[in-house]
Amino acid sequence: MIDLNADVGESFGIYEIGNDFQLLAYVSSANIACGFHAGDPNVMTRTVKASLENGVAIGAHPGYPDLQGFGRRSMNFSPEELYNMILYQSGALQAIVKAYGGKLQHVKPHGALYNEAVVHLQKATAIAQATMALGADVILMGPAGSALQKAAESCEIPFAREVFADRAYEDNGQLVSRSKAGALIHDEAVCIRRMVDMLEKKPILSINGTPLTLSGDTICLHGDHPESVSFAAALNKSIQAAGHSIESLSQWIL
Amino acid sequence: MIDLNADVGESFGIYEIGNDFQLLAYVSSANIACGFHAGDPNVMTRTVKASLENGVAIGAHPGYPDLQGFGRRSMNFSPEELYNMILYQSGALQAIVKAYGGKLQHVKPHGALYNEAVVHLQKATAIAQATMALGADVILMGPAGSALQKAAESCEIPFAREVFADRAYEDNGQLVSRSKAGALIHDEAVCIRRMVDMLEKKPILSINGTPLTLSGDTICLHGDHPESVSFAAALNKSIQAAGHSIESLSQWIL
Amino acid sequence: MIDLNADVGESFGIYEIGNDFQLLAYVSSANIACGFHAGDPNVMTRTVKASLENGVAIGAHPGYPDLQGFGRRSMNFSPEELYNMILYQSGALQAIVKAYGGKLQHVKPHGALYNEAVVHLQKATAIAQATMALGADVILMGPAGSALQKAAESCEIPFAREVFADRAYEDNGQLVSRSKAGALIHDEAVCIRRMVDMLEKKPILSINGTPLTLSGDTICLHGDHPESVSFAAALNKSIQAAGHSIESLSQWIL
Amino acid sequence: MIDLNADVGESFGIYEIGNDFQLLAYVSSANIACGFHAGDPNVMTRTVKASLENGVAIGAHPGYPDLQGFGRRSMNFSPEELYNMILYQSGALQAIVKAYGGKLQHVKPHGALYNEAVVHLQKATAIAQATMALGADVILMGPAGSALQKAAESCEIPFAREVFADRAYEDNGQLVSRSKAGALIHDEAVCIRRMVDMLEKKPILSINGTPLTLSGDTICLHGDHPESVSFAAALNKSIQAAGHSIESLSQWIL
Repeated sequence: MIDLNADVGESFGIYEIGNDFQLLAYVSSANIACGFHAGDPNVMTRTVKASLENGVAIGAHPGYPDLQGFGRRSMNFSPEELYNMILYQSGALQAIVKAYGGKLQHVKPHGALYNEAVVHLQKATAIAQATMALGADVILMGPAGSALQKAAESCEIPFAREVFADRAYEDNGQLVSRSKAGALIHDEAVCIRRMVDMLEKKPILSINGTPLTLSGDTICLHGDHPESVSFAAALNKSIQAAGHSIESLSQWIL
Repeated sequence: MIDLNADVGESFGIYEIGNDFQLLAYVSSANIACGFHAGDPNVMTRTVKASLENGVAIGAHPGYPDLQGFGRRSMNFSPEELYNMILYQSGALQAIVKAYGGKLQHVKPHGALYNEAVVHLQKATAIAQATMALGADVILMGPAGSALQKAAESCEIPFAREVFADRAYEDNGQLVSRSKAGALIHDEAVCIRRMVDMLEKKPILSINGTPLTLSGDTICLHGDHPESVSFAAALNKSIQAAGHSIESLSQWIL
Repeated sequence: MIDLNADVGESFGIYEIGNDFQLLAYVSSANIACGFHAGDPNVMTRTVKASLENGVAIGAHPGYPDLQGFGRRSMNFSPEELYNMILYQSGALQAIVKAYGGKLQHVKPHGALYNEAVVHLQKATAIAQATMALGADVILMGPAGSALQKAAESCEIPFAREVFADRAYEDNGQLVSRSKAGALIHDEAVCIRRMVDMLEKKPILSINGTPLTLSGDTICLHGDHPESVSFAAALNKSIQAAGHSIESLSQWIL
Repeated sequence: MIDLNADVGESFGIYEIGNDFQLLAYVSSANIACGFHAGDPNVMTRTVKASLENGVAIGAHPGYPDLQGFGRRSMNFSPEELYNMILYQSGALQAIVKAYGGKLQHVKPHGALYNEAVVHLQKATAIAQATMALGADVILMGPAGSALQKAAESCEIPFAREVFADRAYEDNGQLVSRSKAGALIHDEAVCIRRMVDMLEKKPILSINGTPLTLSGDTICLHGDHPESVSFAAALNKSIQAAGHSIESLSQWIL
């Protein structure tokens, strides 16, 4: 059992980006931007509707209030300010989801906020606490072994471990930094092979060639490349062909 | 039984306006700005907390996305866009309220949006539908006889009729336009007298001197004048001295 | 002698729209968005540089502060507020243009602001006065016979009459409203024919079939359609093939 | 000869802060916010007019695009992005100043941007280059010995050394960090004494009690405290009483 997630709803006003409506055919969970780094109430609403129509579970994808920088620039928010901001954004999405008969499944921070929450326990804890305030069964999503996972455990809220099909891992199971050569895996067949191996509890190779057993509940698919959709389709197909089931997190993790 | 409401939470970032913490001692319902025309997640959070500490019921006060114009400039939103925007703003506030153990009591549109919703049934209906989506017991607030009231009735959602202590009324019970001489009543004793008379089902005088029986569930108090707080205190005291009870809407209107 | 103009620089942050770099090969004047309805300092800078590299004259294209609505929603600005806002936006662009060795040629209001300025003399006058403040030789651009032209004449500033290749005209030379059937001319060959006829002082046909002598200094090319670039190329070629010269306004109108 | 400067024009929309109109009576140079971290075209315009009426020279006070954080949060802008953003903001102000018959005297970065530019030469250089693009005689303002001064020297643009009346200095002439005890001097008489001593080339005492000869061209006055105006008045009076002249930088530094 595995979940596939992708960031969607990143358009704004007349600006359209992503391949949301195609991607939603292949993923089981959607991370929807909440209007601060991308998205607006109209984009959010149509993305929620499309997700529900595709049977895709919905998560909030809150980010820093910086549309021009797409939430990729760090901003110095105190944990309390982070909590307030995440509750605001995710609450806005939750109301829209509820209006269309759905339920907020998870929260996954975006961009610079995600990167910070992986390593800073205070920021991660603020995010976990905001997630908890949204409902006892709202899942926090983040890398295995990250500060986000620790914060989720402290708060006793459900957590989904995210893995990346196209990223190399260090021996200790951490992601290889993007600044390092070999951080990105460009061969799609290799990416897919690694994910299927993970599902079958077979070790994959770390960037140093060391066998590494990866544990993940959800695989992150990127949506912004031209070939995103075909890769999503191929991964989806390969996972199912290998006899595994793609189901949204809330179906089996809670 | 009467409710007193005031607009609060209209500060933004380092910009502080209003006399929120003093006003909350005298009102029973607070209309909290939701971050589009005023307010931000931090201001909303501290205003929610202060309202709950004062036993004041909380409503969303959504407005147009125009901080520079404080939501006082009309913007051409379709009913669908209005619905999305109101759900977004009010949902954000609802999540914050819920996080602190409270419950969203009502929705009252702000500024240009309020003025339009008084007369345009399509816009009013979009607001009523968004209110309904927030919960079956969320109350819509607006003037008696307005398009907002008609929309609430069509949607079969609870509605609170708002009256203004310092505004003159036409013979038909409509507010006198601000552009007309005599629209504003400056004598505080007269304002208070009119409200107590209304509570005792005695007629007040229209701008033309015609006796008029006003029906209201909630009295709007302005918060932005220097004398707002003393007026709120005096009105609160006079109502209670006349043997009436000031209670938030949800205690008796649902 | 004729000028061809197009709206460019309408991207924002990571959001890319338009075909700026292709269009700049065929126009003589560029209307660059100034950060309120579209564009940001980075987009403006790279668009200014590309315009200068293509020998294209640069104008400011200020709009209402409404990125989500792309400046297409009216907002109630007083003439004084309009003046301030246009001076701000155009001044920002002017500084960038000057930094790269260029000169601000013109101002053309965008979207809802353009539509209002065509008919409201007070708004048009505010725009003309802001244009004048930017320099005595900065040209205001707008439809022939519009309030913008009247305002430019009152202010005694240079004015360029804009015509639209793909729009039908009434008998009196006014644009046919978009809400009316036949307002848009879809046949590209017809569009081009009309423009060449105009250049040769031949009458074109109004929407009612009446011969109409159109006078224009600059032809507006749309940039947001997939076929915008090929149309721009064809019009450019046809005009030159007919023996006319395409030159930016400042070369011959001042 | 000394210049007194203060940050003004930091209001936004209906939000009013500062004591601009009182402060302008006592300073010789005004740093006007440019709409990104504070200020808007209307606030900028009325502040420019008030400055000119008071004979106060005008500088641009650009900051990060973060109204909610008042430009006090760092944002990761590349030097090129910084250059674009500063040129945009300062160019907008320059156009307004010019429209009212004035001239842009200087540029002083605000908040987090100021703090960064003090230590990071690349950021400082981007700011110096943008200042240079605004005109050969536009002065960059910053602390003596800072990266801003080095950048100004490299770019060969005029630089004004800023000192702070109410801040303690280290033995090497650097400002004592605000996080350190004793960083702020609360005794107004002491603050004034130190500034007069500086003007008379007498040493002041560093935080460690070491005599230190401070060199400054302009003294920064804070405008956001209740007692800002009375302090400005007292400093202004004491400087003149000691026989020194308060003149805007452009009168004597170029």
